[in-house]
Amino acid sequence: MNSSVTSAEDLARLDAVALAAAIRSRQVSPREVVEAVIDRIERRDGPVNSICTIAREQARQAALAAEAAVMQGAPLGPLHGVPVGIKDVTPTAGIRTTFGSKLYETNIPAADAEVVRRLKAAGAIVVAKTNTPEFAAGANTFNELFGVTRNPWDTRLSAGGSTGGGAAALAAGLLPLAEGTDFGGSLRVPASFCGVVGLRPTPGLTPMRPGVLPWDSLRVSGPMARTAEDVALMMGAIAGPSAESPISLPVSMDGLLDQVRRFSVKGLKVGYVDDVSGVGIEGGIASLCRRAAHALADAGAIVEETVLDLTDGTEAFPVLRGAAVLLTHRSRMNQIEQMGKNLAGNIRYGQSLTLAQVVEAEAARARLWERTCAFFSRFDVLLTPCVPVPPFPVEQNHPTHIGGRPMKSYIDWIAPTYVLTLVGVPTASVPAGLDGNGLPVGVQVAAPRLAEATVLGVARTLQQLVPVPTIAPGFR
Amino acid sequence: MNSSVTSAEDLARLDAVALAAAIRSRQVSPREVVEAVIDRIERRDGPVNSICTIAREQARQAALAAEAAVMQGAPLGPLHGVPVGIKDVTPTAGIRTTFGSKLYETNIPAADAEVVRRLKAAGAIVVAKTNTPEFAAGANTFNELFGVTRNPWDTRLSAGGSTGGGAAALAAGLLPLAEGTDFGGSLRVPASFCGVVGLRPTPGLTPMRPGVLPWDSLRVSGPMARTAEDVALMMGAIAGPSAESPISLPVSMDGLLDQVRRFSVKGLKVGYVDDVSGVGIEGGIASLCRRAAHALADAGAIVEETVLDLTDGTEAFPVLRGAAVLLTHRSRMNQIEQMGKNLAGNIRYGQSLTLAQVVEAEAARARLWERTCAFFSRFDVLLTPCVPVPPFPVEQNHPTHIGGRPMKSYIDWIAPTYVLTLVGVPTASVPAGLDGNGLPVGVQVAAPRLAEATVLGVARTLQQLVPVPTIAPGFR
Repeated sequence: MNSSVTSAEDLARLDAVALAAAIRSRQVSPREVVEAVIDRIERRDGPVNSICTIAREQARQAALAAEAAVMQGAPLGPLHGVPVGIKDVTPTAGIRTTFGSKLYETNIPAADAEVVRRLKAAGAIVVAKTNTPEFAAGANTFNELFGVTRNPWDTRLSAGGSTGGGAAALAAGLLPLAEGTDFGGSLRVPASFCGVVGLRPTPGLTPMRPGVLPWDSLRVSGPMARTAEDVALMMGAIAGPSAESPISLPVSMDGLLDQVRRFSVKGLKVGYVDDVSGVGIEGGIASLCRRAAHALADAGAIVEETVLDLTDGTEAFPVLRGAAVLLTHRSRMNQIEQMGKNLAGNIRYGQSLTLAQVVEAEAARARLWERTCAFFSRFDVLLTPCVPVPPFPVEQNHPTHIGGRPMKSYIDWIAPTYVLTLVGVPTASVPAGLDGNGLPVGVQVAAPRLAEATVLGVARTLQQLVPVPTIAPGFR
Repeated sequence: MNSSVTSAEDLARLDAVALAAAIRSRQVSPREVVEAVIDRIERRDGPVNSICTIAREQARQAALAAEAAVMQGAPLGPLHGVPVGIKDVTPTAGIRTTFGSKLYETNIPAADAEVVRRLKAAGAIVVAKTNTPEFAAGANTFNELFGVTRNPWDTRLSAGGSTGGGAAALAAGLLPLAEGTDFGGSLRVPASFCGVVGLRPTPGLTPMRPGVLPWDSLRVSGPMARTAEDVALMMGAIAGPSAESPISLPVSMDGLLDQVRRFSVKGLKVGYVDDVSGVGIEGGIASLCRRAAHALADAGAIVEETVLDLTDGTEAFPVLRGAAVLLTHRSRMNQIEQMGKNLAGNIRYGQSLTLAQVVEAEAARARLWERTCAFFSRFDVLLTPCVPVPPFPVEQNHPTHIGGRPMKSYIDWIAPTYVLTLVGVPTASVPAGLDGNGLPVGVQVAAPRLAEATVLGVARTLQQLVPVPTIAPGFR
């Protein structure tokens, strides 16, 4: 094979759609790609600390097989030869998977998670595990095993979380695709902070095996990448029915990338909402998001500033999360002393809850659903800011103020994402612009259940209308 | 129109498939049908008490319009002109809907439930409301407004519940179709006791609006009729995606009746299980169900007696039901004194629960799901007895013994149905034969999620191989 097309350095930073095409057309070989990516991670990840494990041997073996398949003219999956990072809460066969926890420091799973099986079946090559807070509990990425993950745009700052390793790796140009999970915003918050695209899909579309909460619709797995097209390509590979899930939706998203490319916002009814959760939004962030929404009008969308009141979610979400944490960690109750303080605190909070509180939270969630239905009977798409504050110093557990006002709860700052979790609609974060400090700001794009093509179609249009570099300045 | 085809008495007892065909081909008119059905209800329902409200005026207006549509050659829905009974917990516009509760004695809803809208859109005519325990709480049908519903096969006995009015109306030949709901077995238990076919569909297929638990997968609406074909016809009309439900499945079942008719059990792997819930099954019932399962071998199925252990469900179900009851009735807590003792008892039990109990119940439910997945990786279909005891005297709140052994809990006798509720797979009850006292015995047919065609295909085959009259002796 011949890689005159590009240098190894460029190769490592190519987007997935381009990389898949270059591999398919034999312009580059999967082995070159994997070597370039491993090399770049080794040289550049130090100050970012997005990668906790490099799967050198497995990736090289997979690349060898992928190259052979190309040369033999075998049928190739849509991600053939494309490197992917897997969040360290997602089991990978033969590759250490710690869940960011000292309890699992030496854990090497025997089997892949279903989402990893699907990525491999589509031809993707697992090159690395990406850093995560302990059991994904928290929206700033650090743990006692691997330390803090830093934002490639400014390594003094947080990359967000909990898929912070994945987002930082993308923004540092270390990997083209990152798998992650989203409960309160874990695919959207870090995408916003790092200036990439993270999609929280409709629950039931992407696999959650292994998992202990088969009926849960709050935690989902999903794709993250630098472009909406790459996210669509990856989502097409991981979405689909699963016989092992009782909430699985009988839907294939094979053709998602084509749908997203063909998508036009012309005539689309877009509702822009400043503050869905009532926690406040820093002025600069709101104005960038509002401007991005109005930019869609240039492409023919009908954009209206409106209201969607999901403030009840700030009472309901912490309670429902507490109950879910309790259920998730019930087998580990006697190990609570060995956990970090965030996870241990979440579990203790869960233990303090009463059933009456959970019942009220479920009732609130039902009210939010009604309001969301009413909203989507008027609008095709919701646009609203993703994170209400800019990236904060990574040493802080979490920010303390929003627009100068102290937060009422320590998770207020992810309320704009978690209220959309509660209503179960697909939501992406996509860059809306750079703030006064040159840091990326994400806007959430949400649409009715199963309208992933709309969400990503709008995200792709925004990336054309409001272009923002997707690799951080120091890593281009 | 010309009704030489049949007498009014025969007309009222025709099955839905035959009736729809006769109306479509102008052999009978919707008005004749509705008059025959109203007349038969008025003359024959007395000792059964399956119908709590006859919607004379509305049904006659609908029949007039339906007749006009036939005569004008308008496009006709699959249920055009076919009478249907709606369970009195399901709101019907302009028709009294009491929920079997004194609290709603004079309630006349302004709007139809979504399932009723779909039935009407398919051409069905709402002729009557069918009796239910208060808010469907209980598997023996009685309430303080309308009293007890009796079993047409022996009016000293219970018709089962909570869709007892619907099942009894079908078995008495008063209606061809009955809409109902199923939480712990409310479409299957009365179908078993009355010798008809009730389908609990996959959650998310049939609409649950209005409702206060949008994410709930335990309570579902569904069809009941005398034949599997009629159930398929009705299911085709009520199933389908709903923008108003966050668990709605994007699936149409328009072609279900054709699929069911074409279905062959040849080569089908059938697992027969005596006792899925561990509560015991009366010997005569188990042997009838086992014989029905083996009869499928005559049609080419591969039938194996095996084990599926869902006994943990007997701890989990009451707890999860208690939590759901609490959520459902939280706005009525101050009216508990005006409720019947079953519902009030359920609410008080819910209030006594702790979150830890609910968490353990959810964990148990997850284990049951794993076992069910493993079962359906080996078998296409599960057959297992529906109700472990024969119909009991209607004055009893519930039976006290199973096969001579005292029950451990007062709802043990519906454990074989409620454990299948917990795992969310489509399950029908279909007649397996008549017991020594000439009373019908139902066998449950279950298959993986969304395999409604398999469930009803097997049910239809059983109705051919093990024919049981579907109208009770005194009503033929």
